[in-house]
Order: sequence, then C-alpha cells, then structure tokens
Amino acid sequence: MLQSKLSNFIRKEFPKDEEAYNAQILIRAGFIDKLMAGVYSYLPLGLRVIKRIEKIVRQRMDEIGAQELLMPVLHPKENWQKTGRWEKLDVLFKVKAQEDKEYALGPTHEEIIVPLSQKTIFSYKDLPFGLYQIQTKLRNEPRAKSGILRGREFIMKDLYSFHTSEESLNEYYQMVEGAYAKIFNDFGIGDITVKTYSSGGSFSKYSHEFQTILENGEDTIYVCQKCRVAVNREIIEEQKSCPVCQSTNLEETKASETANIFKLMTKYSDPFQLSFKDSNGENKNVIMGCYGMGISRIMGILAEIFHDEKGLIWPKSVAPFNVHLIVLHSKDEESNKDILKLAQKVYDELNQMGVETLYDDRVDKSPGEKFAESDLIGIPVRLVVSQKTNGKIEFKLRNSQNTEIIDFSDLTKYVKNK
Amino acid sequence: MLQSKLSNFIRKEFPKDEEAYNAQILIRAGFIDKLMAGVYSYLPLGLRVIKRIEKIVRQRMDEIGAQELLMPVLHPKENWQKTGRWEKLDVLFKVKAQEDKEYALGPTHEEIIVPLSQKTIFSYKDLPFGLYQIQTKLRNEPRAKSGILRGREFIMKDLYSFHTSEESLNEYYQMVEGAYAKIFNDFGIGDITVKTYSSGGSFSKYSHEFQTILENGEDTIYVCQKCRVAVNREIIEEQKSCPVCQSTNLEETKASETANIFKLMTKYSDPFQLSFKDSNGENKNVIMGCYGMGISRIMGILAEIFHDEKGLIWPKSVAPFNVHLIVLHSKDEESNKDILKLAQKVYDELNQMGVETLYDDRVDKSPGEKFAESDLIGIPVRLVVSQKTNGKIEFKLRNSQNTEIIDFSDLTKYVKNK
Repeated sequence: MLQSKLSNFIRKEFPKDEEAYNAQILIRAGFIDKLMAGVYSYLPLGLRVIKRIEKIVRQRMDEIGAQELLMPVLHPKENWQKTGRWEKLDVLFKVKAQEDKEYALGPTHEEIIVPLSQKTIFSYKDLPFGLYQIQTKLRNEPRAKSGILRGREFIMKDLYSFHTSEESLNEYYQMVEGAYAKIFNDFGIGDITVKTYSSGGSFSKYSHEFQTILENGEDTIYVCQKCRVAVNREIIEEQKSCPVCQSTNLEETKASETANIFKLMTKYSDPFQLSFKDSNGENKNVIMGCYGMGISRIMGILAEIFHDEKGLIWPKSVAPFNVHLIVLHSKDEESNKDILKLAQKVYDELNQMGVETLYDDRVDKSPGEKFAESDLIGIPVRLVVSQKTNGKIEFKLRNSQNTEIIDFSDLTKYVKNK
Repeated sequence: MLQSKLSNFIRKEFPKDEEAYNAQILIRAGFIDKLMAGVYSYLPLGLRVIKRIEKIVRQRMDEIGAQELLMPVLHPKENWQKTGRWEKLDVLFKVKAQEDKEYALGPTHEEIIVPLSQKTIFSYKDLPFGLYQIQTKLRNEPRAKSGILRGREFIMKDLYSFHTSEESLNEYYQMVEGAYAKIFNDFGIGDITVKTYSSGGSFSKYSHEFQTILENGEDTIYVCQKCRVAVNREIIEEQKSCPVCQSTNLEETKASETANIFKLMTKYSDPFQLSFKDSNGENKNVIMGCYGMGISRIMGILAEIFHDEKGLIWPKSVAPFNVHLIVLHSKDEESNKDILKLAQKVYDELNQMGVETLYDDRVDKSPGEKFAESDLIGIPVRLVVSQKTNGKIEFKLRNSQNTEIIDFSDLTKYVKNK
C-alpha cells in the first residue's frame, strides 16, 4: 500500500487522557482512537493487526474442528433471567426496546448458545462438538482505565463445547489448551504466557486461565520456577506450593489475562434443559466447556510487550505490514528518477512475492520524519532506497540496530528469511 | 469440510413464526437462527455466505482506495446531541451506563467518523479520502417482519468520503457507483439491480439508492424500460417521466433496497466543525458523501431471488461451498471400499485444487435425505460417488436438471468451468 494513500493518524505526543501504556502508544502511533473511556475505534493500521490476530486464532480453532458462527449483540431479557444473571451480573448493559421489551447487550454468550445448540443436539451421536465466534462484546465496566486491556466494548473469541460425559469434556479441554499454546507461540509470547490455577468454583479444585507476564499487568501471579505453571494469590495463600509439581519455588510477578478456559459442566444446560438422548434412550443434560480469548486485549498485550522508546516492534505474525519500504527523494532530478525507479521495482517485486508492504512514497516528509514514523509504527523489516544507497537497498530489522546494504537480487533471501 | 463434522441445523419444516421468505428458507436450511424479532444468529453455513459477501465488498472498496477501519457500537450521547439526532432519530437505541452516562447504540456512524476524521485532516492536501467499515449496526425498528431484510441488528458496510469541493465529491460518487455495479455483477444481480431516484432532500434534486427487483420487495419502484434507471413513487407522482432519458415508459415493480449513496455536503461537518485549510490558508468545512450497503440484507435478497421449490441456489461467488460431494455407501463391503476410496480421492483432489468442498460422508443418512438436504443448502455443483456411478462421478449443477457421468480425469475441467 502507498503511504501517501493511507490517512495519517500518527500524533506528535502521547495522549494525556490515558493511564495505560498500551492505549498511549497505540493512539500515538495511529492504530486506535479513543471515543470515550473503554471504547476505541480501530484505525486502518490497527484493524490490520486485529485481523491478523483473528486469522491466527481462527486457523487454530478450525484445526481442532471447531465451527465458526456469529451470535447477536442484542439478547432477550428472558434468557438472562433464566440463568439468574439478569439481576446478578452487574456489568450487564440493559437497553429498552419496542413494545416495552428489554434487551441485554451480550458480555458473553452462554445464554444464547445453549438454547441455540439444542436445535442441533438430539442424541449422543450429535456430540461432542465445538462452536465459536469472534464477536464484539459489551460490558458496563465500572472502571475502564486499562486501555484496550479491559474495555467496555471489546472483540473476543468465545468457544463453547458440548459433551456427553466429563471424560469427553476433559479431552476437548486438553485439545483447546494445545491450540492455545500454538496461538501464543504464533504471537511470540509462548515463553511468557503461563497456565494459571485459580480457585475452582463449583466443579473442580481449580479453574484455569492463561496469563502473560507483563510489567504493567493488572494481576499478580506466582510462577513455578520448575514447571512454569502459575497460581493466583488466593491459591498461594492456601497452599504455598505448585499444584502440578509441588515445588515451593514460586516467583511473584505481574501479568495480564490472555485467555481463559472453564469446565461449565451442566451449569448452563440445567436452566435451559439442554439435553441429549443417551444410548439407552434416556435424556441427560449436556456437559459443557467454554474457552475465551481476548482479540483486542491481545493487541494491547502485544503493544505492552513489544516496543522500545521509539515505538512499537510488532512480531512478524501480527504486524500491520511485513515490510516498510521508504524512499528518500533527491533534489537532483536525474538521481531522483533512478531512486524512484528502484523503489518502484522493489515495491513491485515485494507485491509479486505476496509480501504485504507499506511503501512510504510521501514527498512532503523529511527523512527524519519518515524514519521516526517508521520506528513508531513498528513494521518488522525496513527497506530504504535513497541517493546514499546508490542503486542498492538498505535493510534493517526494527528490533536490531544494524543496517546492511543489499542488492536487489538479494531481496527475496532477506525479506523471507529474517 | 466433512459434513459429519458440521453440526446440522437443517429443519424438516419451515418455521411458523416468520412472515418473510428469506428468513423462512434460511432458517429451514440451517443458515441462520432467529433469536427474537429482527435479531438472528448466523450459523456456520450462513456465516460462510456472509464472509464471502464481505470479501467481495471489501475487495471492491479496496480497489477504489477506500481504507477500512472499525468503529464502536457504543456512542457517547453528546455526539448525537450535537447533530440533533439524539432526540429526532426514533430508531436510536439508548442505554444507561456507569456514572449516569448514556450511550447510543450506533445505527449509522456519521456522529463518530466526523470528529474522528478531524484527527487526520489538516490541510487540503489530506483530501480527498474514503474510510469504510463492515460492522454490526443496531436500530430499534418498530416492525421487524422482513427477516434479515430489515433487522434490529444487522451487518452493514458504510463508507464515508471527505472532500475539498463538490466536484471532488461528484467524482468519488461516480467511482463508488462503478464499484457498486461491479459488486452487483459479482453477486449475479447486476441486471436486476437499478439505480433509483428519490426526492433529494436538502442538497440536490435527487438522492439515489440501488434497488434489486424482487417479487416480495418492500418498495414499489418504476423502472424506465429504455435506460433501466428507476424512480420511486414520490418522483413518479411529480413528473411521470424518467429523470435521465425523459421516457414515459416506466414499469411498476416491487423491489428491495440493496445499497444507498448520499451527498451529505456539510450536513455533518457543520455541527462538528470538521474543517481543512485551503490553499489560501483559509478554514473551510469538509464536503462529505456516504455510501451504505447491507451485508446481511444482501444475503436475504439473494435467498429471495435464488431458490426453487427444493431450496436455495447460491450464486457461485457467495455459495458457502463450491462443491457438494456426496458419497452413497453400499451394503456390499468390497464395493463400499471402492466407493469410499474414489470419494476420498475426489475430495483430496478438490482440496488440492483449492475448491471449497462440503463432503457428505455421513453413514446414517439415506440417499434421499442426502439429496434433499443438498438441494436445500444449494451449493452450485453436486458430485455423487455411488455403486451406480461405477468408478465414475455423477456431476450436476444445482440450477439444472441434467446429470452427467464424468471420469475422475475430467474433474478439473467440470468443476472449474461450469
């Protein structure tokens, strides 16, 4: 894409009305815009990151055979009354509609997917299966000061699984854990994301979430130095040891929740009487699991982790573009022609290779401005064509200080492998 | 995809609580589910259609250089007060939030994109440009009886353009019209979708929308038999002739709005003082256009048009899958092995070719059930492998009665070209 055709939302200063670093840097670099507390727009650069995050999550969900669907934002009051959450869930937005009806705005979708799934569950033969969506959720958060880590409106992947037995649920649960591990690796946060044990609530000793270690994280966790699982504060106060290997070598650290994973058992199938006929023809209630992952939240977490004092440093897998090609115009008309010709040739070649490239072809920006904006945006590979590169190309990785001068013929090798 | 792994939401009967055909057939065929009046879930098959519609629209928007972003559902009350629509727009959903705040749920996004775009508009050099989103909109419709043609929650593409002059707006307007014409052709409704002239409101003699001719359409239009534009009832009562060629040969027909296109001029830039510095350094308000297209509505319109008494007949461009491969098992174990082997070979070959294929591998369904469900779902190409096809493959187009027996080696030719 030509940068001259990309509306520039970059700001010279950090915004003053944001406490959270993720929102500060993402606003300044032109990835998001704050509409009001906890509510953001995703600008063209930011939406590209969101879509790449979604693509990775979708791919890993499809690999485990989960089926994608899309449920509404507007929910009938009756469904939420049935589970008791119309009154109990204080973050539930409520809205008055036609004919004195009231709707909830979905902060989660158990109340919708449970009655929906009855339409495809008749016998044990229809189970197990998983349904997921990537959808905009709304929560009436009392505080909304963590940028896109905890918004009033946010994008989430929520997966629900349906089973005849707890064994089947356990198998599925393991499979989702495997998919999550792959996703965290894809994002480059595999080694700093840990499975965390919290108190289990009604159905099991522990419930689990995935926490990414983060200096500004909202939560405090205790990471086992032996097996790299973690526990939350409540658990450590109870038992002071790792629930997996019993080591007492637990290190306190700040972290932020990236995903969660719950064994719901029949908590929601009971009120809706979601049932199946077993092999003896008897009706039984369906066993369920649910598995959340914050899409917009992950963009925030990645911004918190991958940056330096100059700006963002996106991992390759989610960067808005793979290559930032910058041309520096020359005042000498002849040289300028050669420079533009080479830059265009590089741009065409990268497009040919299927490498998503932002080409900074702007004539009214100084080299200093171009480089500063490039560092701020944080595209992994920077290529410069200028008088100084003299018919060749300057190659630099965003996360390195080194520059190299390469030939056009080396482009593929450098762009694909670094 | 293996059909045994696809949750089956197909119903034996049409739903009794739907007046609109589009919702009746899409619910029965397992594409959508009704949560309440005007609010639907998109089930796995339906979401595939929605995504293909979105992909086509996105591609055509990108071709004209429009930039995609994503704005929120939750809007601050103040923005809607500024334009006077907080009180005036009766379909606006309002919701109470924390700290006695009130939000609107976005039915359209002028109130958001206008102040947002000021952050990237400084001088005339930053104009023109277009920003669009594909997003879920909410409208508190008094009646919601047209299925997904007029929902309380729906998916829409809304594009906004920003200009220094009316000439620039007119050029952009023409360009969007061109993109829309391509989109309608892509959907196979190019020849039955007409530009319709309505009374213009404040800024010009006419405003325009695109109407698709439809037996059950909500609107009545009058199509010029000479130049194929249309007028609405109000215009025909005034002038009884075509506004383009002055022909009086206008035919009354039912139709449904597929898209609209407005010259907003400074209607929304005025209240927000959205301005730019012109080449003389003077501040002027930005001239705007907006261009809507209903994504979920188009799925409904296509279902209304492309069906027969057996079910849906999707156009190739938006079908949930391109090929429906059906295997009919044999009771003879040896034959069954051969049949399954060939079906698998066909499935592998289609995947290899990048043809999205639904493979009906289910063992507990009769041939009659499989064929009936296949006709209902409406995938363009049906392939059958059975004892009867005797080592070959039966090929049938959904919109034809003819079947042909083809060799495996002819697969590419048949699937790619038909």
